[in-house]
Amino acid sequence: MKKNTDVLIVGGSAAGVTTAITARRHYPDAKIAVIRKENQVLIPCGIPYIFGTVGSPENNLIPDAALSKNNVDLIIDEATSIDRAGKTVTTSNGDVIGYKKMVLATGSVPFVPPIPDMRLDNVFTVIKDVDHLNKMSKAFDEAEDLVIIGGGFIGVEFADECRKRKNLKVSIVELLPHCLLLACDEEICIKAEDKLKENGVNIMAGARAEAIVGNGKVEYIQLAGQEKLKADAVIMGIGVAPSSELAKSAELKVDERSSIYVDEFMRTSDEDIFAAGDCARKTSFFTGEKSRLMLASIASIESRVAGANLFALRRRNERAIGVFSTVIDDLCIGSAGMTEKLAKETGFDIVTGEASSPDRHPGGMPGMSNVSVKLIFSRESGVIIGGQIHGGPSVGEAINLIGATIQTRMRADDIATFQVGTHPALTASPIAYQITNAAEVALTKMR
Amino acid sequence: MKKNTDVLIVGGSAAGVTTAITARRHYPDAKIAVIRKENQVLIPCGIPYIFGTVGSPENNLIPDAALSKNNVDLIIDEATSIDRAGKTVTTSNGDVIGYKKMVLATGSVPFVPPIPDMRLDNVFTVIKDVDHLNKMSKAFDEAEDLVIIGGGFIGVEFADECRKRKNLKVSIVELLPHCLLLACDEEICIKAEDKLKENGVNIMAGARAEAIVGNGKVEYIQLAGQEKLKADAVIMGIGVAPSSELAKSAELKVDERSSIYVDEFMRTSDEDIFAAGDCARKTSFFTGEKSRLMLASIASIESRVAGANLFALRRRNERAIGVFSTVIDDLCIGSAGMTEKLAKETGFDIVTGEASSPDRHPGGMPGMSNVSVKLIFSRESGVIIGGQIHGGPSVGEAINLIGATIQTRMRADDIATFQVGTHPALTASPIAYQITNAAEVALTKMR
Repeated sequence: MKKNTDVLIVGGSAAGVTTAITARRHYPDAKIAVIRKENQVLIPCGIPYIFGTVGSPENNLIPDAALSKNNVDLIIDEATSIDRAGKTVTTSNGDVIGYKKMVLATGSVPFVPPIPDMRLDNVFTVIKDVDHLNKMSKAFDEAEDLVIIGGGFIGVEFADECRKRKNLKVSIVELLPHCLLLACDEEICIKAEDKLKENGVNIMAGARAEAIVGNGKVEYIQLAGQEKLKADAVIMGIGVAPSSELAKSAELKVDERSSIYVDEFMRTSDEDIFAAGDCARKTSFFTGEKSRLMLASIASIESRVAGANLFALRRRNERAIGVFSTVIDDLCIGSAGMTEKLAKETGFDIVTGEASSPDRHPGGMPGMSNVSVKLIFSRESGVIIGGQIHGGPSVGEAINLIGATIQTRMRADDIATFQVGTHPALTASPIAYQITNAAEVALTKMR
Repeated sequence: MKKNTDVLIVGGSAAGVTTAITARRHYPDAKIAVIRKENQVLIPCGIPYIFGTVGSPENNLIPDAALSKNNVDLIIDEATSIDRAGKTVTTSNGDVIGYKKMVLATGSVPFVPPIPDMRLDNVFTVIKDVDHLNKMSKAFDEAEDLVIIGGGFIGVEFADECRKRKNLKVSIVELLPHCLLLACDEEICIKAEDKLKENGVNIMAGARAEAIVGNGKVEYIQLAGQEKLKADAVIMGIGVAPSSELAKSAELKVDERSSIYVDEFMRTSDEDIFAAGDCARKTSFFTGEKSRLMLASIASIESRVAGANLFALRRRNERAIGVFSTVIDDLCIGSAGMTEKLAKETGFDIVTGEASSPDRHPGGMPGMSNVSVKLIFSRESGVIIGGQIHGGPSVGEAINLIGATIQTRMRADDIATFQVGTHPALTASPIAYQITNAAEVALTKMR
């Protein structure tokens, strides 16, 4: 069967859906289709919560209504090859779909270390698939010791959710000296680790998993230096790799990490094929160099660029800042831009400023958390290049405000005199407002 | 007794304290003193919460530690006159205090309509004084019917807090067609009113209080058009006026509303005397014309400008945007910049965009509220000039993010492709992020 589309989007997760909605907004009359292989699409960032708070994969789906109400056709099938000359895609079912413009939103797959013991039963990577996640959940029901290899956001979030299952003793094995160290400075990482430890999570940081050992089913993790860690189930959370097989088979340009090359307009090496999300290469907002950031929020922005540019260039990709947030028990953490550590390693001459205050005023107002902010500035220019925050749930939007100051290249002095609204039941007092005061503190060090 | 200071700050509320802290940061060796007449200073925005959530004025104080730990002298006394030639201030106690630079942070006083019945017992203005507020609280304990005249933020917050006192039936009398109409567009005002009504508050909007009637003690409010409203206690919340008597007596320049003239550096007509906060004149960020905004958050920013500029001009006041937030029961509301109504009245050709989404993803995550955003853009330039938001507590910092987009003069397209961080437990999904999508919706109308 031959179908024709104006816009064919390959992939139905954060990038695919956002591209489709954006394309519809910008090109109201285009015939737009999304092709994806999954019957149901999981909210990617919600996956750890399936194992605790949310309860099941079925409670963590991206509703297809987002497509249907935007008059986007949904094709459940797998794109297996691209004929760039003929401008068609062939699918697993043998269908051929014509396109005028295509967007590759094929995402990423978990990085799997090339060791045979990965094939033992109950050793899981985090695949965005309902059946796979249900199988993991069942295994966790029957396990006593869960070991998570990798202490990044995914590892830490899985640990905090899985410790809520009363039967599980949870350990994290992290190669770096601390969990979350790629996104946060050490003092924040330690706070996160302390919170996990308070809740019974065993943290093995600065530890290398050398082998996964078992007989059919995993039995333990062999750590470097003789120590064994009992494991009835293992989650590998050591990162993801771009899913770019389709692009490679079509001879689109990819880099040495298999990220699909895109220009500032999100066009691949073929001007009629765009790419967005985890499969597309990223560039650092701060250095212009390649960035390893892969976030649903970045995917979404790239998709808003790609979707707008399909038939006329309307937007540029402003490069990746990296704005994160997470929650461990009641500790909310946000990070945007460069950490102090990364900024120094990159060669920046920096100044930091810190401020801490209750996020209510007076502090006796209900729901109060102490919120602490650290901002990182380039000393010479005074321009903000990073920020971290921890405290209560107000952190979720406050880190986006810090992100805004970074994206608009505000200087410490601009931030110190920036107009914020404050309210007793919602924020710090205007005298103590943390972001403003952190900038003030940094300024005193610049003089 | 004669004292000498380098910096003398008159007033100890949001402006005075922030000026003192800022002056200390910028001038580490200066001898800085705050003179104020109150033994204890109330958190101004927290005053309505004294009557419900917080329980007493004593639980709503600005701690003096903010001054002492910054090595700022505190003088409890009243400045009664300024000798500008001699650079001294005389106090109620007869002391004379020398200054090199002075900052007037004398704030505002409630506007009192010039009618004799204001003198009836149990008719209260909102004075920032512990004894006065305790007297109000006692009167409310003994009352059945409380009438609040004025449905702005103060009126609405008092209503929501006082209705929590089980003995009180609370009414608001508002002259305009809706409460909050100076800060929010009609549809948000109606949501706020509905929430108050759900909680038993009687709202008389579009109603004029013609007289306060009683015999010694207030008995009722006479509304225009014959209706009487029973009242055992009355709160007048119809606005505040700059407190500028001291400035006037020193022949500093004031405008027709008695606001103290200040230049962009917060200097009064005397270069050695600065003013900041409610007593100082304000200019609109959007029009350059006089603004009636008086907010603790604006006072705080002006104080950061004044405090930095005392001995050398280092900062400019960027004019007042007006970023508000409030909470009524569980409905949080934020507003920044111009409303749609005000923008149109001012003559702007505008486009609005609205978006609504749960502030968690999936929506089943705990603590979810639906959050709705409306952004207002200048059609020709695409620059944002206002925004409103309502939903759960994340609104408190989200309105500051909207404020940042206004202050940095972002265009709709910048906001639509703005990098935000998202997390299942803290924000909307990246696909549905409300501020981004509201900008996208506005863009579709601009084309």
